[in-house]
This record gives sequence, structure tokens and C-alpha cells, in this order.
Amino acid sequence: MTGSLSVVGLGPGHPQALTPEAASALNAADALFGYGPYLDRVPARSGQTRHASDNREEGARAAAALRHAAEGANVALVSGGDPGVFAMAAAVCEQIESGDAAWRKLDVTVVPGVTAMLAVAARVGAPLGHDFCAISLSDNLKPWELVERRLDAAAGAGFVIALYNPISRARPWQLGKAFERLRRHLPASTPVVFGRAIGRPDEKVAVCLLDAADPAAADMATLIIVGSSLTHVIERPGLAPLVYTPRSAPDASA
Amino acid sequence: MTGSLSVVGLGPGHPQALTPEAASALNAADALFGYGPYLDRVPARSGQTRHASDNREEGARAAAALRHAAEGANVALVSGGDPGVFAMAAAVCEQIESGDAAWRKLDVTVVPGVTAMLAVAARVGAPLGHDFCAISLSDNLKPWELVERRLDAAAGAGFVIALYNPISRARPWQLGKAFERLRRHLPASTPVVFGRAIGRPDEKVAVCLLDAADPAAADMATLIIVGSSLTHVIERPGLAPLVYTPRSAPDASA
Repeated sequence: MTGSLSVVGLGPGHPQALTPEAASALNAADALFGYGPYLDRVPARSGQTRHASDNREEGARAAAALRHAAEGANVALVSGGDPGVFAMAAAVCEQIESGDAAWRKLDVTVVPGVTAMLAVAARVGAPLGHDFCAISLSDNLKPWELVERRLDAAAGAGFVIALYNPISRARPWQLGKAFERLRRHLPASTPVVFGRAIGRPDEKVAVCLLDAADPAAADMATLIIVGSSLTHVIERPGLAPLVYTPRSAPDASA
Repeated sequence: MTGSLSVVGLGPGHPQALTPEAASALNAADALFGYGPYLDRVPARSGQTRHASDNREEGARAAAALRHAAEGANVALVSGGDPGVFAMAAAVCEQIESGDAAWRKLDVTVVPGVTAMLAVAARVGAPLGHDFCAISLSDNLKPWELVERRLDAAAGAGFVIALYNPISRARPWQLGKAFERLRRHLPASTPVVFGRAIGRPDEKVAVCLLDAADPAAADMATLIIVGSSLTHVIERPGLAPLVYTPRSAPDASA
């Protein structure tokens, strides 16, 4: 029994953004596990089995991958973006902690990737150029009150805020509530960036101001960056504007 | 005049973590600009000029790269990790905003990379598995009081905290002060991860608890992750422990 598990970050989804390290781990695996649409991004290789699962089954998917590795297979579990950011690496750790004792003896590797906020930020300039945070808007695994407390703390202390998991069929109102909450702290003119599917054929990036930010512009795959009071837009003749947060903050009230 | 500027993220520094997109941008450039040690990581190509500069000259370096591009060259400006995270993309935007009007007409692209906190997190498990933030401890460009306010806000609201630019010869006391500040909010048993040079021959990763976190264990190239009250360690027989933050938070006081 010398199985192993690699938890592999696919990055934003186009092959040019997949690291060679991630490509090697995918290629070396006997078996691939993952959410169906992510697995579809990995080129087929003969002799490799594929085990697709649904979006909301992270725990079960991680357990299935660990079980297969414990039986001796070299398993790659694919994750969109970076596996450590609201993705599969934590689900794997949870299963190792609570599951079969043999899983603690497995060779487990996490291969990082370009997470959505970095890909979206790069497309528009440098909105994450100063201190920032990442918050998942999903209240499946934490109470909504905690999300609001974190939005208050982050906006109040001048962090730029990246919002993951903004909206879904089962969670239709959370993003609108989050924008409302942020409007208590931030100027109406704060830049907001919506980005999805960076580098893929269905890429969409839009910049607006906080007072006009429309939750309907987001879907499940959208990453949203809400600036701080220092974030601003540089207009450019004939080119898309640049959104950026300066590296310096002039005083402690920023 | 059809020059261009690509601001390229090298990732944590080993070639296996450089995206193909970044490698192409480096290869296509007529001229490379960057901090010397980062430039040294890029393989030489004949016909390409190199312009190394010192660590603390981001603004001047960005301006020099823009000037060269405006003269018609295809310039790549290299950045460690991701250019959008405490790196060159914001410095370029600052120069575009305040500099020569011609720079606003340039084709500017940012190529994202794996930033240090993702690389360090991947090495130890999934410490960034829940909401988190990134704070630069450098008080060159912002007052120390603002750093403390952000540490308070982040720790108080349960964010995991990634600390960039923790220490340097000119900033010897900031990391110690930051640990002191965080001890006001977080249990003594909060896991702290020190990581540097991930994937390179001089890689170093260490896990300790907040009450024993020693600033002397960090250097300029170290990235530090301070857990939340939910972050914990899974011991594994014969293997390095896993550090992770569960995806779920049980209540709003977490």
C-alpha cells in the first residue's frame, strides 16, 4: 500500500494558467476525483480512471479520494483555483481528522494554483495592491451574522474585500445584503469588480461603483472585489480603465 | 510605437510553479526589468536586455519599465509571487497615474502567479481554508497604528492572517509587536506557520504556537500565517503534522 493523494489547483481554468507542477501531478495520477466541470478541464489520459461528483459534496468527495488512495492508488483530487482557498484542501484535512486512522499515514500533497481573486485582480490592474481579505458569502457552513461581522470589520479597517461564493440558486439574497452592509462603511464611489471565467471563452469582467453594484450581475462562478476608500480608477483613452489600490495609506483613518 | 508592458508573476520561485502564460510573457519580451534576485530566476535568452534594480526602488523601477515600453519595446517587469499582492502591479498603476500621459496609452498586462501565502499554506495543509486576510507589516508606506488597527480587526473577527514583509534590517521590531498584538485576541495555542522559499533549495517551513512564535525565525523572504481560534493541527505518525482551518464556523463568536 503506497498510495498517495495530491490535491491539485487548476487555477482560473485556461491551460496557460495551470502550473507545470499541477500538470505533472494530474498526469502522474492513476485516478482523478473532482467536481464534474473541473474534471472536464483535465485532458484525458488512457489508463486513468475518473470519478466525477456533484458541487455540494466536498466532504464525501474528499473521503472517496482518500479511500481510493488508502487502497494503493495515486489519486489526484482536482480543485478550481487554489485548493487552499474555499476549496478541497480543507475538506481533505477534515476527513483525515475524523476518518479512518489509515488516512493519517497517507502521503498527501497540496499543489497550489492561481486563485480567482488574483486572476480577476490581474485583469483590471491592481485592486489588491494594499491589505485585503477574502470572505466566502456562503452561509451553508457559518451563520450569516458572522459574515456580516466580518464585512463590518474588514471594511471598517480599510481592507479591500474579495467575495467568494457570492450567489447560487439556494443563496439568492446574500450578495445584495453584503453590498448593503458595505455601503454603511464605504463611499458610494468605491470601485467594485465582477469577474468570472478568466482566460476562458466565457470570461466576463465588469467594473462599477458600489452604489450601482447589482447582485444580478453575478453568478456562482463570479468573484467580486470591493475596493477600500483608497481604491480608484484610472481612465485611459481607448483602453479599459485600470482599477488599483495604492501601496501607501496616508494616515491611520484610511 | 507599439511597445507593451507585462507585469509578470514568477510565483514562489521554482520553475515548476511558473505558469506557461508567465513563461511565454518572459520569453516574448525584448527587455526584462526587475529586482536583481528575481531577474536571476529567469533563464537567459539572447537578444533580450536585462535591467536589474534594488529592492526598495519599486516606483523608479516601474517608471523605467514604462519609459522603455513607451519607446517601443516589449517589456516584461518581473515580480515575485503574484504581481498584484504587495508587488509591482500597484507600483505600475501609480506611475501610470502620475507620470507621462503617453503611459496611459500603453498596452499593459498583468500575469498572475501563485502568491507566497498560497504556496506556504499548501505545504502545511489548509490554514487558509476559511475567511482570511493579507497584511503587509511594512510601515514604510503606512503608519504603524494602521497596521495595529488591522491586526485587531482581523483577529477580532476571526480571520486567519497572512503577514507579508514581516521583517528587514530597517524594520526589526514590527513582527514582534504584531505577535504581541495578536496575543491579545487569540489563544496561546493558535498555530503559526513560518514559510520561505517554497520549492527552492533553501525552503524552510516551521509550525509553532502563538505563545512561542519567535520573530527571529523570520527573514525578509518569510511569509507568516497566524491561524484563527478555529485553526488547528492534526498529528500524523511519521509524517509532518497538517495545519488547517475548517470550512465551517459553528457560531457568530468564532
